[in-house]
Amino acid sequence: MPEKNAHTTAMSAEPEVHEGLEGIVASATRLSLVDGENGRLILAGYAMEDIAPRASFEEVAHLLWYGRLPNREELEDLRRQLVARRRLPPATLALLREAASSSVPVMDAVRMASSTLSLGLRRSNGGDSDRGTTASLHKEIGESVLNGNESLEDQALTAVSAFPAIVGAYWRLRNGQEPIEPREDLSHAEHYLHQIFGGEIGRERARGLETYLNTVCDHGFNASTFTARVIVSTHSDIISAVTGAVGALKGPLHGGAPGPALDMVLEIGEASRAEEAIAARLARGERLMGFGHRVYRVRDPRASVLSAASERFYTTEGNRELYELAMAVEETALRLLARHKPGRPIHTNVEFYTALLLHGLGLSSELFTPTFAVSRVLGWTAHCLEQLREGRLIRPQSLYVGPRERKC
Amino acid sequence: MPEKNAHTTAMSAEPEVHEGLEGIVASATRLSLVDGENGRLILAGYAMEDIAPRASFEEVAHLLWYGRLPNREELEDLRRQLVARRRLPPATLALLREAASSSVPVMDAVRMASSTLSLGLRRSNGGDSDRGTTASLHKEIGESVLNGNESLEDQALTAVSAFPAIVGAYWRLRNGQEPIEPREDLSHAEHYLHQIFGGEIGRERARGLETYLNTVCDHGFNASTFTARVIVSTHSDIISAVTGAVGALKGPLHGGAPGPALDMVLEIGEASRAEEAIAARLARGERLMGFGHRVYRVRDPRASVLSAASERFYTTEGNRELYELAMAVEETALRLLARHKPGRPIHTNVEFYTALLLHGLGLSSELFTPTFAVSRVLGWTAHCLEQLREGRLIRPQSLYVGPRERKC
Repeated sequence: MPEKNAHTTAMSAEPEVHEGLEGIVASATRLSLVDGENGRLILAGYAMEDIAPRASFEEVAHLLWYGRLPNREELEDLRRQLVARRRLPPATLALLREAASSSVPVMDAVRMASSTLSLGLRRSNGGDSDRGTTASLHKEIGESVLNGNESLEDQALTAVSAFPAIVGAYWRLRNGQEPIEPREDLSHAEHYLHQIFGGEIGRERARGLETYLNTVCDHGFNASTFTARVIVSTHSDIISAVTGAVGALKGPLHGGAPGPALDMVLEIGEASRAEEAIAARLARGERLMGFGHRVYRVRDPRASVLSAASERFYTTEGNRELYELAMAVEETALRLLARHKPGRPIHTNVEFYTALLLHGLGLSSELFTPTFAVSRVLGWTAHCLEQLREGRLIRPQSLYVGPRERKC
Repeated sequence: MPEKNAHTTAMSAEPEVHEGLEGIVASATRLSLVDGENGRLILAGYAMEDIAPRASFEEVAHLLWYGRLPNREELEDLRRQLVARRRLPPATLALLREAASSSVPVMDAVRMASSTLSLGLRRSNGGDSDRGTTASLHKEIGESVLNGNESLEDQALTAVSAFPAIVGAYWRLRNGQEPIEPREDLSHAEHYLHQIFGGEIGRERARGLETYLNTVCDHGFNASTFTARVIVSTHSDIISAVTGAVGALKGPLHGGAPGPALDMVLEIGEASRAEEAIAARLARGERLMGFGHRVYRVRDPRASVLSAASERFYTTEGNRELYELAMAVEETALRLLARHKPGRPIHTNVEFYTALLLHGLGLSSELFTPTFAVSRVLGWTAHCLEQLREGRLIRPQSLYVGPRERKC
C-alpha cells in the first residue's frame, strides 16, 4: 500500500479499504458454520463430529445439494447418477497424458482436466450462445438447491464424480502406469482409492478416506469457495467455477496443506528421540507444523474427527508402529509447547491428523492437496447452487491510488 | 435471503451482510480509475480518450505491467517477447480440435485452452511441488510489477500472447477450417485478425481493433478481474487466475455483452424506418439495448473513444452505409428517449459502439465476448501482479443462517 500523504488524508471522501476483505461478511449461507471461538463446525445443521464419521460421502453430497439427508431411494438414485459419470471424456484423458509427459504438478493437471469437463456434460450448457449458460435456468431455481434443474444437477454431479478419476488417472500416468477403468460397484471413496491404486480396497481404508472427505468438504468462505461463488455470481456455469476454485486451492496461502505436519514425525523416526528433537526445534525458535490454527482458539472439531479416524484405521488395517510414533510425537509436542508458551493453549491441528491419516492410506504427500480437492469440490458445487439461487453479482469497489494527469 | 424473524433481529451481534460486496472497497489499485459520476476513466495515469486511440496494445501492456510507457528499446523487447509466445502448445491445439468437434461455445473453449497454457511456460512453475508456485517468488517482487521476475513475466506474457491464437484457432476449427500459422511480423492486433481471417489485414482495420483492445483492457474490479485477484491472492499462478477470470467473463451478468446492441440496428435495416420502429419499442415498454449504463451517469468515455474509432474505420475501409444507418438509429433513439424519459439523460453506451465497430471489422457476434477476453486478459495479468506485490489473502466471512442441532 502506498503511504497516504497529507493531501489524500485531508480528503474526507476517501473510503475505507478492506484489504483481504477481512471481517467483511460477503453473504449468508446454509452450508456451514465455522465457529473458531467455540470449536464448532456445523455442516447444514449437523455437528461435524456427528456426521462425518457416520455418513457416506454420497449422503453428505445429498445433504449439501438438497438441504437434507436422503432416504434410501434418494440415496440409491444419487449413487447411480454419480456412478454414471465416472468415465472421463476421451479428450480429458488425452490431455492428462500430455500433461504427464510434461510432468506438470498434479494441481495444474487437475485444473486443466476440470476445465474440459464441459465436454462430458449430458445436456447442452448454452448451445451456440457464449453467454447465458445458466441465466435462463436461474429463474427456475426454487427452494431446494437443485430442484429438478437438470443442467445444474448435471454440472454438479459431473464435477464431483470426475475428480477421483482425474487425480487417479494423472497420478498413474505420471508414474508410468495406465489409468484404471472405473468400476460401478464401488462407493465414491472406494472409487477414488481404486483409481489410484487399483486392486481391492480394504473396508477400513475406504472408511478412513470417506471420513476425511466428509470432514473437509466445506468450511465457510475460504478463498477457493469464494472464487467459485464470484465466478458463478455472473451466472456462469459450475464447471467454470470449479476450475477457478482449483486454481485458488493450489496456492500455498490457501490453507489446508498438511504435508509438513507429518514431516516432523517421519524425521524424528523413533518415539525415544521425540523429546530431544522437539525441544531443539523450540529452542531454535522454529514453529512446530501441525500445531495451532488461525481460526480455532479451542480444538478444531475436524482434528477430533480425523484423530479418531486415524486411530481406527491404524489399529485395524494400518501400520500400528507409525501411529504409536505419531502419538508419542504429538504428546511430547503438546507437553513441550505448554511449557514453552504457558497460558496460550495450543492444540494439534487438522493438518497433523490429515497428514497422518492420508499417509496411512498410502497417499503420497503430493496427493494431499489433490485429495483435498476431491472432497472440497462438493462444497464448491453446493456454494455455486446457493449463490445462483440467492446471491447477487459479486463486484466490489477499488480505490485508485495511481498517478493522474499523465499526458501522451 | 431468509427473512429475519424477531428472534434473530434481537441479537445485537448479528453482523451486516454485504451481498455482492456492493460499496465495499476491496483493495487499492494503480491500474484504473472508473469515475462514473464524472465520466472519467483513467488508465495508469492517462485519460482513456488520450491513450487508447494513440498507443499500440504493446505499449499499453508495458504501461500496465511496468507502470509507465516504454521507450523504443523496451517496446521492441516486449514485442519480441510476445511474438516468441504466439505458437500454442500442441496439446492446446489438440484440445481445441476436440472441443470444436463437440461444438462447445467459444468461451468454454477459451477457458479450456487457457488452463493448458502451463504446458507452454518457458520456466518451471513449481517443479514437482503442487504448492508454492509463486510463493518463493513473492518476496522478490519489488517496486515494478515485474521487476525481473522471470517466471511471473513469462506467465503474463504467455497468457496475453496466447489468447489471439486460442480464439482464432478455435473459431476456424469450429467452422471447418485449419488454424493459421502465426506470423512474426504482425502487431498483436494484426495477429488476432490474422489468426481469425488469414490474408492481409488492412491498416485501418487493425487500428480499429487495436483501439478497441486498448479501450476495454481494464475497468476497476469487475467480477472477472476480482476473480483473478482472489485466485492469485493465495499465491497461486497467473495461468490459474486467468482461467478463472475467463469463467467469470462468460457469465451473462458480467457486463460488456454487446451483441444485442447491434441487433436493433440490423433489424431496423433502413434509416427511414428508425423513428417508427424505436417509438414502437418504447411504447411497448422495451429497453433499448445500447443506451444507458449502470455506472456512468454522463457519457462513458469508452463510448466516445469507440465512436470515433468506428467513424474512422467505417469511413475508410468499412461499409459506410451501415455506419450511416447506425448513426441514424442512434440519433433517433437518443431523441425519442429524451422525450420518453425527460429529465433523465441517457447516453449511447459502450456496447453500442463496440458492437458497431467489431461487426464492421468482420467479427461475428459470437466472437464479441472472446474478443473482449483478448483485451481484458491484459488487465487480469496486471491485477495479478499488483495483487502479488501488494495484496493479502482475500477471504471474507459468511453468516450461517441454516439449521442447527440436527441429529444423525
